[in-house]
Amino acid sequence: MNPEHILAGDRRALARWLTALEDERREAQEVLAALFAQTGRAQITGVTGAPGSGKSTLVAALARGWRARGQTVAILAVDPSSPFSGGAILGDRVRMQALSGDPGVFIRSMASRGALGGLAATTADLARALDAAGFDQVVIETVGAGQSEIDVARAAQTTIVIEAPGLGDDIQAIKAGILEIADLLVVTKADQPGAEATVRALRAALELESAARSAGVAPGWAVPVLTTIAPTSAGVSEVLDTLAAHQAFLRSSGAGSGREVKRLQRELELRLRQRVWQRFALGLDSDVLAEWAGRIHRREIDLESAVKSVLASTHIPEHE
Amino acid sequence: MNPEHILAGDRRALARWLTALEDERREAQEVLAALFAQTGRAQITGVTGAPGSGKSTLVAALARGWRARGQTVAILAVDPSSPFSGGAILGDRVRMQALSGDPGVFIRSMASRGALGGLAATTADLARALDAAGFDQVVIETVGAGQSEIDVARAAQTTIVIEAPGLGDDIQAIKAGILEIADLLVVTKADQPGAEATVRALRAALELESAARSAGVAPGWAVPVLTTIAPTSAGVSEVLDTLAAHQAFLRSSGAGSGREVKRLQRELELRLRQRVWQRFALGLDSDVLAEWAGRIHRREIDLESAVKSVLASTHIPEHE
Repeated sequence: MNPEHILAGDRRALARWLTALEDERREAQEVLAALFAQTGRAQITGVTGAPGSGKSTLVAALARGWRARGQTVAILAVDPSSPFSGGAILGDRVRMQALSGDPGVFIRSMASRGALGGLAATTADLARALDAAGFDQVVIETVGAGQSEIDVARAAQTTIVIEAPGLGDDIQAIKAGILEIADLLVVTKADQPGAEATVRALRAALELESAARSAGVAPGWAVPVLTTIAPTSAGVSEVLDTLAAHQAFLRSSGAGSGREVKRLQRELELRLRQRVWQRFALGLDSDVLAEWAGRIHRREIDLESAVKSVLASTHIPEHE
Repeated sequence: MNPEHILAGDRRALARWLTALEDERREAQEVLAALFAQTGRAQITGVTGAPGSGKSTLVAALARGWRARGQTVAILAVDPSSPFSGGAILGDRVRMQALSGDPGVFIRSMASRGALGGLAATTADLARALDAAGFDQVVIETVGAGQSEIDVARAAQTTIVIEAPGLGDDIQAIKAGILEIADLLVVTKADQPGAEATVRALRAALELESAARSAGVAPGWAVPVLTTIAPTSAGVSEVLDTLAAHQAFLRSSGAGSGREVKRLQRELELRLRQRVWQRFALGLDSDVLAEWAGRIHRREIDLESAVKSVLASTHIPEHE
């Protein structure tokens, strides 16, 4: 794991480093620490949408568009059902392979593990590593519907939320948490029936939400709703232009810095939580939690009293 | 918050208790500890599916079915877009209100908060509270796609995963993690085009998965794929019968106890993580994480070194 090889563009060295980061190996973390000053240059875009929404197809089209504009692209697929992760068995995968033959494109899939913020932390690390490795564009693709996906999307500077037609005017189908994190909405498959109704429903939902939007979304940016059509790539250059405009907005308004500080603070807290737990767990005997669970199951003790007993009887080492 | 009022069926006392549990108030936890011996009687069913899959409609039909069989029902809606949570503005909500006029049905929606396992822990508490309050059936309704929803679903003894037609033969749309937790698959809207293809796709996916199924799913139970049609409630009694059969299987095979011990162990760990973090955070000055985040943002220090500095400079109090 030689940082110079990674900076020189050695793809196998990069792949090995990313694997070691996923495995949370200490030497990989040290390389990231050593290269930390190289980060902060890439544009990091999150793309989130339900399985079947045409997310991977859009990501592939964006990648081709960036390549045509002379930029290098790294794709980090967090969705286990993504064709980038080998999850698809259909035509999609062939298209992705064509893309992966381009030396200016790097594709990496991530195992979706670590329920307790572990995935979000690892995704942020890998995005930062790809940033350090010199890619101009880093795309994080996630399947968009749950809290952990929202956490993962937060590693991005700009987040695209995708909806396929079929949503109609049904507000029920619009996930409040997902709209809150969107900087840009894209309705894919815009040649299919119902696309216009979906655009209308999203615009209406955005208006309803705008008053209640979270502090994470910068004021002064009106979230656009764009449309794309996959086979012709219609609409893709508008998406690319809007992404560039959003990045320019983040820079000029200062909102980008504010977001990054908040993001780093969350990440710091996630890592501290994990580390503090690991330190506590050092003081636990291996089977002690299973034994307590058995006692709770037999209704010999309640959960809260068991928590207190474990806390009281475990010494937290001051140092790792 | 008088436990006797709750056990006597006072709905307002129950509602206040649940709110206090959501707020993690100590006296509410104490009531739960006091009533802990009363738990373990209800059948807890998780129902998970994407927004628009007809999940709430099925839950309402199941509730009516259980009522017709003389059982009481509590519904815990974790999905913020659920009509049970007031997320819908359409006809659905009217149907739910009809249900909520029945004194044998209790409906409760939960705010989707607490990314770090907090939601899963709170959901498990509320389900346990409804169990203690004497409901025969407790349903946890979640929007099914992310890791946190999977964690939430784990609070249930039996998990139903819902798919609406339209999936076709597209394996991409089948989320591996979701299939792993399914004890029972239901294809809703079975009168719509594509329903048969969806059933076939799910059966094929189940077969592919069966070798790799997680230890959480008991061997000896073949996951059935059922179909329902909403307006006529066709198929709903088969779902009710299958739920009863699964509960009988869990009891007779001993798989139910094994699952519950694992579930309790996970919950114990979640709570300990939270508590250990809270204890650590007592030793942190309020703005110290924001200050470190600023330093990281200015690239004065890398994230990992900042984590080490905070850990080294914070004393963990031995007691809360």
